[in-house]
Amino acid sequence: MNEIKIFTPATIANVSCGFDVLGMALDTIGDEMLIRKVPEKGVKITKIIGQNLPLETHKNVAGVSALALLAQIDCEFGFEIEIDKRIKPGSGIGSSAASSAGVVWAINELLGKPFNSSDLVRFAMEGERLATGVAHADNVAPALFGGFTLVRSYEPLDIISLPTPKDLYATILHPQIEIKTADAREILKTTVSLKKAIKQWGNVGGLISGLYEEDYDLIGRSLEDFIIEPIRSILIPAFDTVKQQSINSGALGGGISGSGPSIFALSKGEETALKVADGMRSVYEKIDIDYEIHVSKINKKGIRILKY
Amino acid sequence: MNEIKIFTPATIANVSCGFDVLGMALDTIGDEMLIRKVPEKGVKITKIIGQNLPLETHKNVAGVSALALLAQIDCEFGFEIEIDKRIKPGSGIGSSAASSAGVVWAINELLGKPFNSSDLVRFAMEGERLATGVAHADNVAPALFGGFTLVRSYEPLDIISLPTPKDLYATILHPQIEIKTADAREILKTTVSLKKAIKQWGNVGGLISGLYEEDYDLIGRSLEDFIIEPIRSILIPAFDTVKQQSINSGALGGGISGSGPSIFALSKGEETALKVADGMRSVYEKIDIDYEIHVSKINKKGIRILKY
Repeated sequence: MNEIKIFTPATIANVSCGFDVLGMALDTIGDEMLIRKVPEKGVKITKIIGQNLPLETHKNVAGVSALALLAQIDCEFGFEIEIDKRIKPGSGIGSSAASSAGVVWAINELLGKPFNSSDLVRFAMEGERLATGVAHADNVAPALFGGFTLVRSYEPLDIISLPTPKDLYATILHPQIEIKTADAREILKTTVSLKKAIKQWGNVGGLISGLYEEDYDLIGRSLEDFIIEPIRSILIPAFDTVKQQSINSGALGGGISGSGPSIFALSKGEETALKVADGMRSVYEKIDIDYEIHVSKINKKGIRILKY
Repeated sequence: MNEIKIFTPATIANVSCGFDVLGMALDTIGDEMLIRKVPEKGVKITKIIGQNLPLETHKNVAGVSALALLAQIDCEFGFEIEIDKRIKPGSGIGSSAASSAGVVWAINELLGKPFNSSDLVRFAMEGERLATGVAHADNVAPALFGGFTLVRSYEPLDIISLPTPKDLYATILHPQIEIKTADAREILKTTVSLKKAIKQWGNVGGLISGLYEEDYDLIGRSLEDFIIEPIRSILIPAFDTVKQQSINSGALGGGISGSGPSIFALSKGEETALKVADGMRSVYEKIDIDYEIHVSKINKKGIRILKY
């Protein structure tokens, strides 16, 4: 196998209550990447379509992640990367993570899988460090593992795969404004009240129990963020209205996807998720901001091969 | 049925990472209570053995909890309570909760179960309010439900029963010093760093996943408290040494039971839990403080009937 074409998914990090620890993978939105073995050592990005992103290896998240992997192995050849970038950078649905995770997953396949998923998370985190200044794992982990993931700890890195209820769907509204993750981190307070922190970890517990029990109501009740959402949501036009309209349309709950501006809602069943999309659309139709809406089942598999 | 004798268990609240939300019930330590229907309306505590506690209904946590229940129902008769109080007050293993939960559970049985478990938690929380100044539920919930419980939310009250891995045992060292819950709350800071809060809810997620997966290692890795333990442990003689010795003896992990002074450790299997008890003993044998040690399977059933 000298060449592999993959789909690498968009992801929703935080999932309301699980700031910096929870994430989940999407199914109908993601990038396509082609990775090719070449005789020349190193990593070369030969083509990027869809978005205006740097081709220089050291300035591109995929390039940096690939180099992090190759630094751990003696490799007599190199790789070329082509990216069909469908997830817009700064959308809040894991654009940099899809590139970072995709490239290391594909190279690992081409090398005969010398690395495990945790290793790959670590390499892809270097791409995240370039993109946001912080080597976070809450997007790259679900992209690589699929489904819901929990980053229990960073030191040591400890990633837990959580079960995904079979009828769970996400609806995502992406307002076409850009919020840089670094900026969205900047406005957060470095301390939180103990009372709110207790409520937050109660909800993390409830959400995880809900995933195991396939208890959709419990999942919905647990989708409450007392700490981050009240601050970040002011950056997102009509956030409260969109969220309320989602719930009115039947969603279990929702919140900010990653660091925004995308807003997500979770629903039981595709039919409801589509109604939630209509509800979100009805709000943004009245606002002079372009937007996209996605509806997706939760992707249990993560990255997948399209062609090799 | 005019009279019921019950066992009402000791409980471990917080369980390291889950301050104010997690709790679990013990099996080999608890109080016995006798509740008797009597023609005279109201609640009368006729006997308390084992501990020096007030017999006046309004000053006794069992009395107050019973009154909270009776306030919600039209009852033509009353109740007498006898308490064989084996859990010492101020031990950190849910002494007040055992009395509060026990009495409302027993009265509900004698009345033909008009109330559900959530109602009973609410009544028993009034006993906790009398004992500690705060109507917390993290001890009364596991006493009433059995096993591990999560108090996801107080408003509205939302209690989730979690699974209990079958080989999970607790070892508890109870130094015979008293720490009042109210005092142990006083020394806590009202704010916490966001970074530590994130680590804490990562561990809450890990612990709950570990309970579902029966992943004992994950349970152990998640038993870390970055927020409360560093502050409260200074009140407990040789806390760090006992904890380290527990882990050296094979425990998965441990921490402060409730607000202390009891120290708990969780182990896989009774044999290890007994070794952990030896380890704890070896530390306290060198200290001039009386202590008790308990080893218990996690009690999946909660309160149980001894005789009726």
